[in-house]
Amino acid sequence: MNSNMEKPYVVGIDIGGTNTVFGIVDARGSIIANGSIKTQTHEAVEDYVDEVCKNLLPLIIDHGGVEKIKGIGIGAPNGNYYSGTIEYAPNLPWKGVIHLASLFEERLGIPTALTNDANAAAVGEMTYGAARGMKDFIMITLGTGVGSGIVINGQVVYGHDGFAGELGHVIVRRGTGRLCGCGRHGCLEAYCSATGVARSAREFLSAKTEDSLLREIPAEEITSKDVYDAAVKGDVLAQEIFEFTGTLLGEALADFIAFSSPEAIVLFGGLAKSGDYIMKPIHKAMEDNVLTIFKGKTKLLVSELKDADAAVLGASALAWELKDL
Amino acid sequence: MNSNMEKPYVVGIDIGGTNTVFGIVDARGSIIANGSIKTQTHEAVEDYVDEVCKNLLPLIIDHGGVEKIKGIGIGAPNGNYYSGTIEYAPNLPWKGVIHLASLFEERLGIPTALTNDANAAAVGEMTYGAARGMKDFIMITLGTGVGSGIVINGQVVYGHDGFAGELGHVIVRRGTGRLCGCGRHGCLEAYCSATGVARSAREFLSAKTEDSLLREIPAEEITSKDVYDAAVKGDVLAQEIFEFTGTLLGEALADFIAFSSPEAIVLFGGLAKSGDYIMKPIHKAMEDNVLTIFKGKTKLLVSELKDADAAVLGASALAWELKDL
Repeated sequence: MNSNMEKPYVVGIDIGGTNTVFGIVDARGSIIANGSIKTQTHEAVEDYVDEVCKNLLPLIIDHGGVEKIKGIGIGAPNGNYYSGTIEYAPNLPWKGVIHLASLFEERLGIPTALTNDANAAAVGEMTYGAARGMKDFIMITLGTGVGSGIVINGQVVYGHDGFAGELGHVIVRRGTGRLCGCGRHGCLEAYCSATGVARSAREFLSAKTEDSLLREIPAEEITSKDVYDAAVKGDVLAQEIFEFTGTLLGEALADFIAFSSPEAIVLFGGLAKSGDYIMKPIHKAMEDNVLTIFKGKTKLLVSELKDADAAVLGASALAWELKDL
Repeated sequence: MNSNMEKPYVVGIDIGGTNTVFGIVDARGSIIANGSIKTQTHEAVEDYVDEVCKNLLPLIIDHGGVEKIKGIGIGAPNGNYYSGTIEYAPNLPWKGVIHLASLFEERLGIPTALTNDANAAAVGEMTYGAARGMKDFIMITLGTGVGSGIVINGQVVYGHDGFAGELGHVIVRRGTGRLCGCGRHGCLEAYCSATGVARSAREFLSAKTEDSLLREIPAEEITSKDVYDAAVKGDVLAQEIFEFTGTLLGEALADFIAFSSPEAIVLFGGLAKSGDYIMKPIHKAMEDNVLTIFKGKTKLLVSELKDADAAVLGASALAWELKDL
């Protein structure tokens, strides 16, 4: 009997600024049980871990108990895979360096791995999704921010300190770029995140005079979803915003290809679901800008994981390679 | 007796557009015998391989014969590690896809690996030079062009097709950039190679009116060496050219750090030997531009391999990990 048959399940925990979601996952990537709590309920991280365990343990017991769980994977902002710590995460209630993986290991006696959410997404895509069987690919998560998880030779790239893969903060507009949340100017994230698209909308609306459905919305309230809805209705300005966003992202992807020559780039998140409005300009800019030897070689894919499941699946996938404590 | 004692030597072959240099190297990185031939002498690659072997074999026999050689490593432009081929190298006499590694294996009966010169330089630096003991670093070669070799988790990054690590062709000036030899605009190589520095000199001389020693040289004949010599003599314009070049490179390095968070970036080549004139602005721009979580973490190093030996050492280092045929 191999260990996967003895221990057929893994647990995924995704820690967001607002909610913490968790689930028990089988080897085929089905979430067989899940739950969630509010992340902000406890100021002391030990109390938070207790609360997660109080909600998670009954699910585990329902499915054969702790001995059926191969490991726990955690996706968390500013997560460091090497140390299993969350370090100075601005949107979480616990300050400084938090040894979260070992807190769960001590509490449940289950081996636990932790990384940031984009790296977890990459492992999820490699294990259950669009990157199955690939050894070299780049995951780009397009959400409120832009994250990335890079896989080379079948391994996530963590770098010497555990924090590699911050492609959302590569500079795409040098000198003249927008201020990014990180304090620098011109980052990819300042343009290709959901908030970046909303900013582009406001810029386009004030710089241009053409009619647009977006003018019916107070400028400060425009979201990337509004831009998508307008684009679908044939709004030319909204379509131009997507073209601008996609071109910028595609140009950046061409540079990423020069780095690791991946078999595929997998896009995840709301923007990636905006269909041809965004995918066509991304693909065109990527191919127009990539070095000749890489032309036509790198696939541009959209995540195959369901939005609602992706975070838990990604985190859970980390756990399949864990060794027993 | 371990296999390194049975086979204490490796052979390094570096194929340049003009010369092919080769040598026998011991485990401490000493070149114990070496030679060279003109690369362009033979139109048929088989004849070229014969010529290399005719010159190399006597050296091998002098040092105990083929059975003392663990392997051969070849550094060559457009070298593909996976297939052991040179593919469409514009500066070599053999067109198309050349199965060079297997030609040497068949001729000498010694296992042979091949990669491009910058990847070979990275392996050389990891085996004998400034990156000894490091698992995550980036090698940047500043020569006629700008090359790179990326090491992650102790392995050279070859990508899915064998051609990863073209950081000389990342775009550093989008839209307004110089034409690069690759046909695109704004590549790092168009600014930070030796020819890039000479171009900057011509641009600075025509854009500015200030006095400079460089004005004594016909503009089309200025080399990066001239700029260095002028900078050493206190020429302000020459020093500004280095500052411009170094700033551009440092900005690019900050983006590379966001990708793989390396322990060090190792610079090789003439420019890297220009001391503080270039290293200070590189380091300042790198630290000024890097994402906060990476600040102060990545070392900026200069290659520890002697210029004359580096190509052969780098190529030879590939061979230590080869298995017997």
